Amino acid sequence: MDRVSEKIIALGIDVKNQNKAVANYVPYKIVGNMVYIAGQTCRENGVMVYKGKVGQDYDIITGQQAAKLCGINILSNLGTSINYQWEKVVSCVSLTVFVQSANNFYDQALIANGVSDLMVDVFGDIGQAVRVAVGVNTLPSNSAVEVAGIFEILI
Amino acid sequence: MDRVSEKIIALGIDVKNQNKAVANYVPYKIVGNMVYIAGQTCRENGVMVYKGKVGQDYDIITGQQAAKLCGINILSNLGTSINYQWEKVVSCVSLTVFVQSANNFYDQALIANGVSDLMVDVFGDIGQAVRVAVGVNTLPSNSAVEVAGIFEILI
Amino acid sequence: MDRVSEKIIALGIDVKNQNKAVANYVPYKIVGNMVYIAGQTCRENGVMVYKGKVGQDYDIITGQQAAKLCGINILSNLGTSINYQWEKVVSCVSLTVFVQSANNFYDQALIANGVSDLMVDVFGDIGQAVRVAVGVNTLPSNSAVEVAGIFEILI
Repeated sequence: MDRVSEKIIALGIDVKNQNKAVANYVPYKIVGNMVYIAGQTCRENGVMVYKGKVGQDYDIITGQQAAKLCGINILSNLGTSINYQWEKVVSCVSLTVFVQSANNFYDQALIANGVSDLMVDVFGDIGQAVRVAVGVNTLPSNSAVEVAGIFEILI
Repeated sequence: MDRVSEKIIALGIDVKNQNKAVANYVPYKIVGNMVYIAGQTCRENGVMVYKGKVGQDYDIITGQQAAKLCGINILSNLGTSINYQWEKVVSCVSLTVFVQSANNFYDQALIANGVSDLMVDVFGDIGQAVRVAVGVNTLPSNSAVEVAGIFEILI
Repeated sequence: MDRVSEKIIALGIDVKNQNKAVANYVPYKIVGNMVYIAGQTCRENGVMVYKGKVGQDYDIITGQQAAKLCGINILSNLGTSINYQWEKVVSCVSLTVFVQSANNFYDQALIANGVSDLMVDVFGDIGQAVRVAVGVNTLPSNSAVEVAGIFEILI
């Protein structure tokens, strides 16, 4: 078994937690050596787990768990895109983290660590991405966090 | 006439609806086989058509029309970038949809369908993009929606 | 001395103003001929200079200065990524500008000019990027503006 698969199992991550695209879009797209992953919310097996604003309905620890769940959904789609041949992953290029935030909540960077740390746990140094973390007033289905990602793969 | 041009005419879309860039930026940029399109608002021939927050000033149907107008502006710039040689379009890679939202409006995914459906209407399956849909409290010139896009083309 | 270095000096820009990544992410990543730059806030030598909402705590002129500072931080990271060999820069591909905005502030395009103008001042026409400018209710550490960028370079 490859190192990343071992890591995913050791971390107890269910990368088969698939959330279906519910409209005219696709969960991932491969262009050359790049995989673009659609914005992932805090759904698990189709159910929204973290609904509400961080800094109001959720504290930092819970917000980080919400971001981690978005990251698991990213991994799930990335895995599908490469038929779980994790050794193909060259690099996590970018993570864009939208945190549904109370108007006076400014710790989006801490929340984003929930997904950044996951990628490094799974992929090691190549999991360190360029990151954009911002607050927004609302997210689809009241999700606490949404994360989009771009990965470089071998072709 | 190519299939996409026929579709655009059949849908009654004016892809010559050009909105000039009003500052030191460009409406599109080609890098290799990728076309990046600047964020498009709800302007038609330079006039902002949908001003206000979705879930407050606009209902879902109108919000979808606003998103569709952003999509028409994306098509307009994409068309210019490829000199209207639509057969060059390989894929709509990504659409990032910002919905100017009331604080308790969570149906950004439905609003984003306005632009996703347009791309599939025009391009068929290759119009299905990776999508990021989020709510924001304000957008330039009070636009109800703003959409940025990336396309893959033949070079 | 190359033209861009001369311009940077003439503009009095300190591109060695490094702000360390404070978590498990990287400030830039090179994939082929593209450099992705992480979201840059209004920090100077690690200190947040512009804290607050534009249209409430800051007027347009100050908001533009805040955006310019984000741009300087982008240049700083871009410079590091190419070992300050500025002649390698082919194009500023995209700038994504998040403006921490009062709920009734709609001049994000004007604020974004602060960073767009900087890129054109430094790089000339190739500094004209595809731009996405949006308002958000909150940003990390209460930064007034955050900007992410993508550049094309020679490889």
